[in-house]
Amino acid sequence: MIRFGSTSDKRALEEGIELAPRFDANGLVTCVTIEAGSGEVLMVAHMSAESLAKTIETGEAWYWSRSRGELWHKGDTSGQVQTVTEMRVDCDQDAILIKVVVGGDGGACHTGRPTCFYRIVEGIGSTAPRLSFATGARP
Amino acid sequence: MIRFGSTSDKRALEEGIELAPRFDANGLVTCVTIEAGSGEVLMVAHMSAESLAKTIETGEAWYWSRSRGELWHKGDTSGQVQTVTEMRVDCDQDAILIKVVVGGDGGACHTGRPTCFYRIVEGIGSTAPRLSFATGARP
Repeated sequence: MIRFGSTSDKRALEEGIELAPRFDANGLVTCVTIEAGSGEVLMVAHMSAESLAKTIETGEAWYWSRSRGELWHKGDTSGQVQTVTEMRVDCDQDAILIKVVVGGDGGACHTGRPTCFYRIVEGIGSTAPRLSFATGARP
Repeated sequence: MIRFGSTSDKRALEEGIELAPRFDANGLVTCVTIEAGSGEVLMVAHMSAESLAKTIETGEAWYWSRSRGELWHKGDTSGQVQTVTEMRVDCDQDAILIKVVVGGDGGACHTGRPTCFYRIVEGIGSTAPRLSFATGARP
């Protein structure tokens, strides 16, 4: 498995060229997954060192399922395999961004919708937020 | 302060119209912040119930700074205030997405760059990843 850097030096983390992910107390970094074509955010998930390593090695998205407590190769059962076209890391290396091409029916959300972000928080500027469904995302 | 829903019912969380954020053990949800104009991901940060409530009420992004352990009105010192043009929530309501217009010099990253995701992980499909700087993002 890939051995990641482990520097905690602020300058090396922010300005260096070594990938040194800062995994949290649970051994995870946050991953934001974007559809390469549309630029739409599909999902937010987590990666362990092993899933990040497998994502880099295979070029397909592997996550850590917190609910199931296991390594998760996205698309294994759904066919919605995510092929990585670009990966980025943020300034302090505790978040990963991947741009992906999605296999199968092209969706990412377990509810059957293309993206997990199918609801809009209405009422910004008020004290009474409520949700609405994005176009085409009604139950 | 806004009182959020607190259902843990899967169907209500995923298909309902009540905003019921699932804060983690530290009382936080993940927030992905996108530039409204370009669609570019600017940063990934965290929101407490109070910061999420203040973001909704004021229409400007408030986060929880984990490093400083305090509520954080983005732009208070830098002028890079983020005005929210749209907010979304994901299927299981543990992640928030906001689209923002950025004030001040238009940047979001404390390193002075427009986005926190200024480095690309090269070597996808190999066992030897290394970072490169996106165009214009060199130190």
